[in-house]
Amino acid sequence: MNPSPTVIDLLIEARWVVPVEPHAVVLDDHAVAIHEGNIVAIVPISEARTLYTPRERVELAEHALIPGLINAHTHNPMTLMRGLADDLPLMTWLQQHIWPAEGRVMGPEFIRDGVELAVAEMIRGGTTCANENYFFPDVIASTYQSMGFRAVVGLPVIEFPSPWAKTRDEYFARAEQVHHDLKGDSLITTSFVPHAPYTVSDESFERIREQSAQWDIPVHLHTHETAQEVEESIRDHGMRPLERLQRLGIINERLIAVHMTQLTDGEIAMCAAAGVSVVHCPESNLKLASGFCPAEKLRAAGVNVAIGTDGCASNNDLDMFGEMRTAALLAKAVASDAAAFDAAFALRAATLNGAMAMGLGDRVGSIEVGKRADLAAIRLDDLETQPLYHVASQLVYSTGRHQVSDVWIDGKRKLAGNVLVDVDVDGIRAKARRWRDIIAAGDVQ
Amino acid sequence: MNPSPTVIDLLIEARWVVPVEPHAVVLDDHAVAIHEGNIVAIVPISEARTLYTPRERVELAEHALIPGLINAHTHNPMTLMRGLADDLPLMTWLQQHIWPAEGRVMGPEFIRDGVELAVAEMIRGGTTCANENYFFPDVIASTYQSMGFRAVVGLPVIEFPSPWAKTRDEYFARAEQVHHDLKGDSLITTSFVPHAPYTVSDESFERIREQSAQWDIPVHLHTHETAQEVEESIRDHGMRPLERLQRLGIINERLIAVHMTQLTDGEIAMCAAAGVSVVHCPESNLKLASGFCPAEKLRAAGVNVAIGTDGCASNNDLDMFGEMRTAALLAKAVASDAAAFDAAFALRAATLNGAMAMGLGDRVGSIEVGKRADLAAIRLDDLETQPLYHVASQLVYSTGRHQVSDVWIDGKRKLAGNVLVDVDVDGIRAKARRWRDIIAAGDVQ
Repeated sequence: MNPSPTVIDLLIEARWVVPVEPHAVVLDDHAVAIHEGNIVAIVPISEARTLYTPRERVELAEHALIPGLINAHTHNPMTLMRGLADDLPLMTWLQQHIWPAEGRVMGPEFIRDGVELAVAEMIRGGTTCANENYFFPDVIASTYQSMGFRAVVGLPVIEFPSPWAKTRDEYFARAEQVHHDLKGDSLITTSFVPHAPYTVSDESFERIREQSAQWDIPVHLHTHETAQEVEESIRDHGMRPLERLQRLGIINERLIAVHMTQLTDGEIAMCAAAGVSVVHCPESNLKLASGFCPAEKLRAAGVNVAIGTDGCASNNDLDMFGEMRTAALLAKAVASDAAAFDAAFALRAATLNGAMAMGLGDRVGSIEVGKRADLAAIRLDDLETQPLYHVASQLVYSTGRHQVSDVWIDGKRKLAGNVLVDVDVDGIRAKARRWRDIIAAGDVQ
Repeated sequence: MNPSPTVIDLLIEARWVVPVEPHAVVLDDHAVAIHEGNIVAIVPISEARTLYTPRERVELAEHALIPGLINAHTHNPMTLMRGLADDLPLMTWLQQHIWPAEGRVMGPEFIRDGVELAVAEMIRGGTTCANENYFFPDVIASTYQSMGFRAVVGLPVIEFPSPWAKTRDEYFARAEQVHHDLKGDSLITTSFVPHAPYTVSDESFERIREQSAQWDIPVHLHTHETAQEVEESIRDHGMRPLERLQRLGIINERLIAVHMTQLTDGEIAMCAAAGVSVVHCPESNLKLASGFCPAEKLRAAGVNVAIGTDGCASNNDLDMFGEMRTAALLAKAVASDAAAFDAAFALRAATLNGAMAMGLGDRVGSIEVGKRADLAAIRLDDLETQPLYHVASQLVYSTGRHQVSDVWIDGKRKLAGNVLVDVDVDGIRAKARRWRDIIAAGDVQ
């Protein structure tokens, strides 16, 4: 005699389920059972129908269901500066456009409106989690909370006064307050975000080392982004940034090192041995002509490689499908090996590896029993993904983010048949246009 | 007294018109007047309304109107092999997957179905013209004709027998027949497509030189694609491919040189002086780890640089928005200059430069009075292209091809509000799936 079916909240039946863990597996005609936001089973559809009585059933007959994509490096308030100043040398871009604009607008309202626009864009593109790096983490966190989006918000440290804090002590005091206020939150955790080795002192790094260990949170840091950064570190500190960070005790499994376009084989081995995560931001590195991250060498050395879009002021989108594709393509050319950084690895880098870097590896990043249900469904019957030979190839090399049809975060539906759930799209667009007028009025062309 | 308004076929009123020529100009609130497929005026909307009585008026209040994108290198029948074999070394990919598959399926039916799928994808993505390189140019041409798509079809020459021709004489005889049959066609012209220097003999190149001059058609050729190709040419001919081509009289204003990842400064100068066009296929070069085309150096030297997607077996899409973006991003990193290959130039490379390379520079590639109306409209009010500071930046760095709403070729509407006009999408999808089953059944995994 069959046991009676279990009542669950949600059953998603998909033509293909790509769990990411186990690696490089595609499950045909499988269902994912979800209850109270948790993934409780991944079984063939026919079996699911006898095992469960779902309160809601979603049928995805032409879709792949994947873990929600994880954007492992971004500055989402800057989405409001998308395309403000392109095709310029780095210092002209920063000093004549971005910093003056930030000076005029940075504050809670700008931060909130920028994050709202970013969240809407991310959900529409299948991203369910972001590693955030910007000022006003309290406002950032509350905006993510109100929109039901998962994020690690960064606690900034920089040796310059900003509208967020004026002194080193104030940066650390505010960090402590925000970290304390977010304790136990189901969607938001924290990290330290020292801006970069050239803008943060040894003393601050030492405080970050102690505090991050005590709180057990990641340290999310731009480094080895350009050759100039490395040269200036040698000039000012007598050593390359990674060596300095190593002496300061920052090179460990909590470090999320972003960009990393300038690396020796010894540095790669050191990062692998220490358990450092690297976030590869290929489009930002290309657009700012920063250099080429040796992504395949890092992967082969066993470094945990994740993928980030960087902020919209330097990319100019939050499109993790595009970034995953660029990462895979570029890695092959940089490694002179067409077999490098394959599609299955690109999907892993854009999901589970991001979660692991951000300290969320036990919670999200793959479709596994016991994890929270952060999921994205991608329609693959568009002509642009036909014919279909291999699901992972299609997802990485052919899929456009507009093919994302449905998204769940923490078990809650955020995108339903391409439509954002409970998001005021017109209001977000109107606010973006208002900020555009303010920012453009002050920008020197 | 005002003259009475002129009756015209079509008036397109757009929030922005990006004519490409003049360079780097964006016209606010302009209309393009079209009669009998020709562009007859580009004037402010208010003026257009007094000057013209259009039989059809299209209002594009949130859109940019651009010249249709021109894909300057593709193998469209291979769209049916999209994603068949990825992440493999070049020779494994070719010898174990692509060539065996071609051997099983190549023939008129496969060619026609592949081109139909490709045309549907191209129109949906704002592409209105393709530089085609594959066997059976007669079938390719008739498929383009029946779908009303503009193309240059290549007349293949290769020193191997194929289902298209068995001997050198047969390749040239069939080339002559196809060229003759297409004379005077309003949408289709021809080029010679010798496969590559390593698969075509000196004798064939000499015949191509004479015949292409006599017919005044381009010579569309893969070359300097990989370091291996250059090394083998030195081994077999005692010189690099471009030097050999130069001695054979192929280096002239009719040459469309595709890929060109291996170039000396002297070769760049030679191409500039001779009026050679170069087609940059950045995503194919990355995916096959072929190398990095010095696109910015070529641009700076005055070479006519166009952009192509290459075939779907090695890309895996026909997305000219994606390719334009990758071209601009990659050129900056390769040139170590964030100001290189700017958005306005990327748009030009993806439109007018393609037309010039293909001998269509007086007919299409820009929105100018007297040219044929090949146009694409892009919706820019999506959240992903908000806020909007600079139209060209947004088109190159943020726009996804799904934002293409309307397309005209030769004055005829091909896409209307995101819907293909007179295209049997379900039929095309069904045929793609049928070919998938045939090809996958024979593929060795």
